[in-house]
Amino acid sequence: MSKAEIGLIGLGTMGAALALNIADNGFDIAVWNRTTEKTKQFHADAGALADRITPTESLEELVAAIAKPRAIILMVPAGRAVDDQITALRALLDDDDLIIDAGNANFHDTNRRARDAGDLPFLGIGVSGGEEGARFGPSIMGGGKRAYWDRVAHILTAISAKHEGTPCATWMGEEGAGHFVKAVHNGIEYADMQMIAETYGIMRDGLDMTDAQIADVFAKWDKGPLKSYLIEISGKVAGAIDPKTNKPMLDVIVDAAGQKGTGRWTVIEAQHLAAPVPAIEAAVVARNLSSQRDMRAKGEGLFGTAPHHIPHDNLGTETLESALIAGKILCYAQGFDMISKASEAFGWALPLPAIAKVWREGCIIRSAMLDDMADALATDADGNLMFAPHFADHLKQHHGALRQVVAQAALHGIALPALSSGLAYFDAMRTARGTANMIQGQRDFFGAHGFERIDGGSDQHGPWGS
Amino acid sequence: MSKAEIGLIGLGTMGAALALNIADNGFDIAVWNRTTEKTKQFHADAGALADRITPTESLEELVAAIAKPRAIILMVPAGRAVDDQITALRALLDDDDLIIDAGNANFHDTNRRARDAGDLPFLGIGVSGGEEGARFGPSIMGGGKRAYWDRVAHILTAISAKHEGTPCATWMGEEGAGHFVKAVHNGIEYADMQMIAETYGIMRDGLDMTDAQIADVFAKWDKGPLKSYLIEISGKVAGAIDPKTNKPMLDVIVDAAGQKGTGRWTVIEAQHLAAPVPAIEAAVVARNLSSQRDMRAKGEGLFGTAPHHIPHDNLGTETLESALIAGKILCYAQGFDMISKASEAFGWALPLPAIAKVWREGCIIRSAMLDDMADALATDADGNLMFAPHFADHLKQHHGALRQVVAQAALHGIALPALSSGLAYFDAMRTARGTANMIQGQRDFFGAHGFERIDGGSDQHGPWGS
Repeated sequence: MSKAEIGLIGLGTMGAALALNIADNGFDIAVWNRTTEKTKQFHADAGALADRITPTESLEELVAAIAKPRAIILMVPAGRAVDDQITALRALLDDDDLIIDAGNANFHDTNRRARDAGDLPFLGIGVSGGEEGARFGPSIMGGGKRAYWDRVAHILTAISAKHEGTPCATWMGEEGAGHFVKAVHNGIEYADMQMIAETYGIMRDGLDMTDAQIADVFAKWDKGPLKSYLIEISGKVAGAIDPKTNKPMLDVIVDAAGQKGTGRWTVIEAQHLAAPVPAIEAAVVARNLSSQRDMRAKGEGLFGTAPHHIPHDNLGTETLESALIAGKILCYAQGFDMISKASEAFGWALPLPAIAKVWREGCIIRSAMLDDMADALATDADGNLMFAPHFADHLKQHHGALRQVVAQAALHGIALPALSSGLAYFDAMRTARGTANMIQGQRDFFGAHGFERIDGGSDQHGPWGS
Repeated sequence: MSKAEIGLIGLGTMGAALALNIADNGFDIAVWNRTTEKTKQFHADAGALADRITPTESLEELVAAIAKPRAIILMVPAGRAVDDQITALRALLDDDDLIIDAGNANFHDTNRRARDAGDLPFLGIGVSGGEEGARFGPSIMGGGKRAYWDRVAHILTAISAKHEGTPCATWMGEEGAGHFVKAVHNGIEYADMQMIAETYGIMRDGLDMTDAQIADVFAKWDKGPLKSYLIEISGKVAGAIDPKTNKPMLDVIVDAAGQKGTGRWTVIEAQHLAAPVPAIEAAVVARNLSSQRDMRAKGEGLFGTAPHHIPHDNLGTETLESALIAGKILCYAQGFDMISKASEAFGWALPLPAIAKVWREGCIIRSAMLDDMADALATDADGNLMFAPHFADHLKQHHGALRQVVAQAALHGIALPALSSGLAYFDAMRTARGTANMIQGQRDFFGAHGFERIDGGSDQHGPWGS
C-alpha cells in the first residue's frame, strides 16, 4: 500500500471535517485519534472518500503510514494537549518531518513552540470558517518558516476557500503570525456581530418592527454594500420560526452571549500593542454585560423601561444601513491598524492586502467589502484604512447617518456600545487638536510628568501654583 | 545608638518622600540607596528630621541598624529590581523579618513573591498620591498576611492621609490584593481624567468658551457634587498662563498623552475577569489615539474640521455638569464591580466600603463623592454601585443630561469615548431584554453553539435552514 501524503491527529468536529476536505481534494491522508473507536467510525462514515483515508490505531502506525518527509496536522484542543502531542510525536518523527498545529492556539504559544522546535519543522496555522468551512473550504492563515509552508502549500491552497478562483490560504509570517491574524479575525468578528445586533435592537425597540420585517431589511442589506455572510445569516436568524412554539426564533433565544476567549485575547494583545480597537472592546463588554441578566432586570426595575420608541421621521432603515456601513468600515480600520502595529512590534511583515484577501471567502467575516479593502490596503491606505480614497468616500457619505443613529439611540435609551465607540474613534481620528493637553496638564500637576509644548520645546513643570 | 524601627531601600522621588514622612511622624528610620552619594545627600537635606534618619552605606549596615524583628520597605523600580533586592536582603535577614514592597508592582508579581516567600514575612502595598502624597500623607492599600500588616500598621496609618481623622491605610487582603486595588484605582483615574477632558472639549470646541471661562466652570463644579482633586486641578490647569508666551497654558501643551501602563494592566485584568470596564478602556484608547497626532491631522485634512459649534440653547454648562456627575458614577460603578469580581475570582474578601474610604484622601481620585460611595457600598449597593439608592437617585436625576451631551457631541463631531461608553453601560444595565439573542442566533448558525431558550430549555441548533 502506498504511503499517505499527509497525516492528521484529532478527529473532533473540525479535524474530521478537515480530513474529509483533504481527501476530497485528492490527497491520501492517514488519520489517528486517541479513541480508536472514533477513528473507525470516521472511516466507516467517509463513504466514497474512505479509500483515500488510512485509519491508524497508534501514533507509530500513523507515522509509518505517511510518506517522508512527513507532514502531520494537529487538530487537538488548544493548550497543554498540543504540547503533549508534539512531544509524543517528535519521539517518533525524523528531523525533517513537519508538525502543523491547525487548532485555535494563542499565538504566544505558537511563538514559543516555533522557538522550541528550533530546526525541527513546525507551522502554526489559523483555520477559520467553522465545521462547514473546514469541510468545504476554510480561510487559512499560515505562520512559521516560509520553506515549511511551501512544502504543504499545494494541499492547504487546494482545500481552502476560493474567491473567484484565488485560494484563501496565505503564509502570513514567522512563528505565530498565522494564529495572530486569526485572533484579530475573531476580534473583528465580535465587533461586526455586535454592530449588527445593535441595529437589530434599534429596529426592534426603536422602530417597533417585527422580526419578519427585520429579516426583510437584513435580506435587502445583503444585496448592497453590507453584503456579507453575517448579514445573510442575521436575516435568516431573524426570519426563522421556532418549531416548538411557532414564535419567531429570536424571541425565544435568551439574550445572554458567552465568549470563548478569542475576543478577549485580541483585546489583551491590543493593549500590549497600544493599538486602539474600541469597537472590539465594546463587543466583548457587551457580551459580558449580556451575561448579567439578573442585574439588567434589576436595573430595568429600578430605572424603568427606557422610552425606546424613535419617531420614524427621525430615523429610517436606510439611515440605519448607512450608519452600519460607516461603523463596519471603522471596525475593520481598527483591526487592520492593530495588525499593522503588530507587524512592526514583532518584526513580522504581515501582508495587509493578502490578509483582506484570505478573509474574502471561507471565514465568518467574509464579505463583499473585504475585496475593496484588499485593493485599498494594496495601494493607498496611507496608514489607516479609513484614509484610503474608496473608504474615505464611504465615510464622508455615511458618517452623518452614524451620528443620527448614535444621537437618537442616546436620547431613547438604546445601548449602542460598538457603534458609538466607532463614531468616537472616527471623530478622534479626524480631530487634529484633541483634548489630551488637559490630561497632560493634569498629569504634570500631580506627578510632575512634564509635557511637550506646541512650539517644539518641553516644560518640566507648569506654572500651576500649589 | 538605638536601633531604627523600620528601614527603607531606594531614595528616588517616592522613596525619599516616604522616608521623610515616616521620620516626620516620629519613627526612627534607617535608609540605604545603591548610590551612597544619594543617601548622604538625602540625609544632609533632611533638616530637622536628620536625627531620626540613619543613613547606611551597605545592605549589611542597613540590616544591622534596624531593631528586630525588622521591617524594611522597598521603593525600587517595579520588576526585576524588586526580585533582586529581595534575594539580596533575604540572605542577610532573620526568618521573622518583614519585607514590604511599596513600589508599583503588577499584582501578579506580588502574588508570586508572596507565594515564593512561603513562611518568610512579606507585604505588597500600593501607595497612591504621587510625591506630595508620599511626603505628607498617601493613600495606602496593603496586601499580604494580615499578621504582617498588623506589625507595621501603626507606622502605615500614622503616615497615611486622614479623612476627618480616619487614616487612609487599610489591609485589603492576601498576597497581591493591595497592588490589585491600586491598579483599579489607576484605571478609574484614567477614566475620570478622560471624562473631565471630554467636558473640556465640549466647552472649548462646542461652546466656544475661553480657557479662563472654562477654569471658572471647573472652579464652580468643585463646589458641588463633583468636588474632587481632579476637578480642582483641572480648573487650575485651565486658568494657568504660560510665562513664556502669556498665552493660556492649555493652548501651549501638546495634545498627546502617554501612558505608563497601569491603565493597560487594569484593562487586561478586567478581560481575564470578564469585568466590564468600558470607561477605563475608552480612556486608554483615547490616550493611544492622542499619540497619533500625524494621523489625526491627516484625518482632519481629509474629512474637514467637524462642525463643532453647539447652540447654547441645546446645551449649557449646567447640563454638562449633570452629565459628568452621571458619567463619574458609572465609571466608579465599573471599577468597584471589577474589584468585586476579582474578590470572588481570587478568593479574596476585598472590602469595598473600606476601599472607597482609603481613596477619600491622599490619592489622585480623592473626592467628596467617595465618602457617599463608602456608605452606599457598606449598606445597600445590591450588586452594583449604580443600584445603591443614593446613586440610583443621582443617576435618575442626571442620565438625561448625559443623553443630551452624548447626542449633541455625536451630531457636532466631538469625540466623547468615555462619556458615551458610560451611557451605553447605563442603558445596557437597565435593559432587561437585550440584543445578545441575535448574537446567540448568529453563533449557533455558523458554529452550532446551541443556545438557551427563554422557556428554560435549550436547543442544540436552530431551524436555520442551510
